[in-house]
Amino acid sequence: MICSETKLIVRYAETDKMGIVHHSNYLVWFEAGRTDFVKKLGMSYSDIESMGIMLPLIELNCKFYGSATYEDEITVITSIKDITYTRIYFNYEILKKGCPKPIVTGETVHVWTNTGLKPVNLKKYKPEIYNLLAGIKA
Amino acid sequence: MICSETKLIVRYAETDKMGIVHHSNYLVWFEAGRTDFVKKLGMSYSDIESMGIMLPLIELNCKFYGSATYEDEITVITSIKDITYTRIYFNYEILKKGCPKPIVTGETVHVWTNTGLKPVNLKKYKPEIYNLLAGIKA
Amino acid sequence: MICSETKLIVRYAETDKMGIVHHSNYLVWFEAGRTDFVKKLGMSYSDIESMGIMLPLIELNCKFYGSATYEDEITVITSIKDITYTRIYFNYEILKKGCPKPIVTGETVHVWTNTGLKPVNLKKYKPEIYNLLAGIKA
Amino acid sequence: MICSETKLIVRYAETDKMGIVHHSNYLVWFEAGRTDFVKKLGMSYSDIESMGIMLPLIELNCKFYGSATYEDEITVITSIKDITYTRIYFNYEILKKGCPKPIVTGETVHVWTNTGLKPVNLKKYKPEIYNLLAGIKA
Repeated sequence: MICSETKLIVRYAETDKMGIVHHSNYLVWFEAGRTDFVKKLGMSYSDIESMGIMLPLIELNCKFYGSATYEDEITVITSIKDITYTRIYFNYEILKKGCPKPIVTGETVHVWTNTGLKPVNLKKYKPEIYNLLAGIKA
Repeated sequence: MICSETKLIVRYAETDKMGIVHHSNYLVWFEAGRTDFVKKLGMSYSDIESMGIMLPLIELNCKFYGSATYEDEITVITSIKDITYTRIYFNYEILKKGCPKPIVTGETVHVWTNTGLKPVNLKKYKPEIYNLLAGIKA
Repeated sequence: MICSETKLIVRYAETDKMGIVHHSNYLVWFEAGRTDFVKKLGMSYSDIESMGIMLPLIELNCKFYGSATYEDEITVITSIKDITYTRIYFNYEILKKGCPKPIVTGETVHVWTNTGLKPVNLKKYKPEIYNLLAGIKA
Repeated sequence: MICSETKLIVRYAETDKMGIVHHSNYLVWFEAGRTDFVKKLGMSYSDIESMGIMLPLIELNCKFYGSATYEDEITVITSIKDITYTRIYFNYEILKKGCPKPIVTGETVHVWTNTGLKPVNLKKYKPEIYNLLAGIKA
C-alpha cells in the first residue's frame, strides 16, 4: 500500500487554553497529508483543481487517543482506503515524536465534482486521473 | 429534549479557495454550540473549567450534505445525546438560512477529566455537575 | 462619523496556550467588523464582490493593550478613516465587556482591484460604489 | 545579523474565497519564524515558557506586496531588530518561491511577562535569558 509521510511542527496558534492542540487543526493536518500524498503520485492537488476537478469532503470520522502541544514533532501518515468512480476514501494516522502509538486516527470521504461543485463520474469525466489513482489502490 | 440555537454569520476567513466554508470551521461552530448549550443550563463552560473539569474530545463524526459561504446566516442546533459518569455525547445540526435541511450534521464524544487531563468519574468527582446534566437528559 | 458595532463571544478555538485569544484572531474580528460596516451602508460585501470588486489588504497596524479570553463578550467598532480612488482605510477598536478602554486598536489599508486582483481606479471602474462610500466619509 | 529561515508549504485551509492566503495566516507564519529563530539560539521557545516567561504581542505592523496561494513554497526570514530589558522587536520577510522580492514584510513587538502576564524586567527576572539574547543582537 502506498502512503505518504508529512512532517510538521506544532504551531503556537494551533494550541488552545487547555494547553494542547485544538482538535480542529487535525483536519488541517489531514489535508496537508492529502496534499503530500497526491504530490507523491507525480501530480499536485493544484494540478487536479486546474483540470476542473474539486474534491469536497462529505464525511469525516476521527478518534483522539492522546494530545500534542506546541513544538511537538508530528508525522501525518496518509493512505487511500478506497477509490470509486464517484468517491475517494483517505485514512490518516497522526504520530507524535516519542509516542509509539498514533495520537489521532481519522478517515475522510470526498466526492469528485466539477468546478461548480456538481458530482461527476471521474471515470467518464477525467479517465486519466481515475486510472492513475485506481492503479495506486491495486 | 433540551437543545440550544446558536446564530452566526460566516466570516471571510472561514472560506477557502473553493469559495465555500472550509470544513474545519464546522468543528469550531460545534464548539460555539456547546458553549451556548451549557450556558442555557445556568452555568458557563468557563465556570465548569474553573471548577477543575476539562472536557477534551475523544471522538468526532460529521456528514456534509451541502456547503455555506461568506455572509450566510447559520444556526447551530446543539443537544445532548447521552451522558455517563465518564463521558458526554453531543449532537449538532448546522442549518443555513433559506435551506430547509441541515447542511452538516455531527456528533462529538468528550471525556470528563481533571485539569491534568486525567479521566475522572464525574459522579464522584463533581456530583453537582453530573446531577445537573443527568437531569437534562431525562 | 458613521461606525458599526459588531458583537461576538470569544470561541474556545480562538484561545491559545497562554489562556488568552491568539492575536491572529483580532484580524478575523476586524474583518467581521468590515462586513457589518458595509452592510450598514445598504449593500453587502458579497454584493460588492459579485460586482467584480475585490479589496485585498495592503497594510495592517495593530496595538494590543489588553487581552480577552474564552466567552468574553467583545464589541468591534469599525469606521472608515479615509477613502480615495484607489484605496480605503478602516479603523477598529476592540472592546471587552467590563473594560472601559479598548483592548486592541488597529487600522487596515485595502486596495480596490478587479477579480484578477489588478488595482483599479474605483471612481472610473464602479462610480456608484465610490460615490456611496465617499458620501459616508463626508 | 543572525536570522532564521523557516520553510513551509501553503495549506488549503489557509486560502480564502479570493483564492489567495488569508492575511491572518501571515501572523501564524511569523510565529513559526520566531519559534525557529529561538531554537537556533540553542533553547526552545517552550523552554523559555517553562522558565516562567511569556512573550505576548503588543504591536504588529505588516505590509503586503503580493499574495501566495495553495501549495506555494514559502520561506519566512526572521531576525531580531532590537531587545531591551522590557521588550523584544522582531522583523520578518515572507518570500515565495519564484518571486525575487518579499510578498509580505512585518514587525512585531513583544513584552516580557511572568506567567500571570505581568510585565517584568528581563535583565533582573531571568538575566541568563537576557544575556543570551542581548549577545545575539550585538
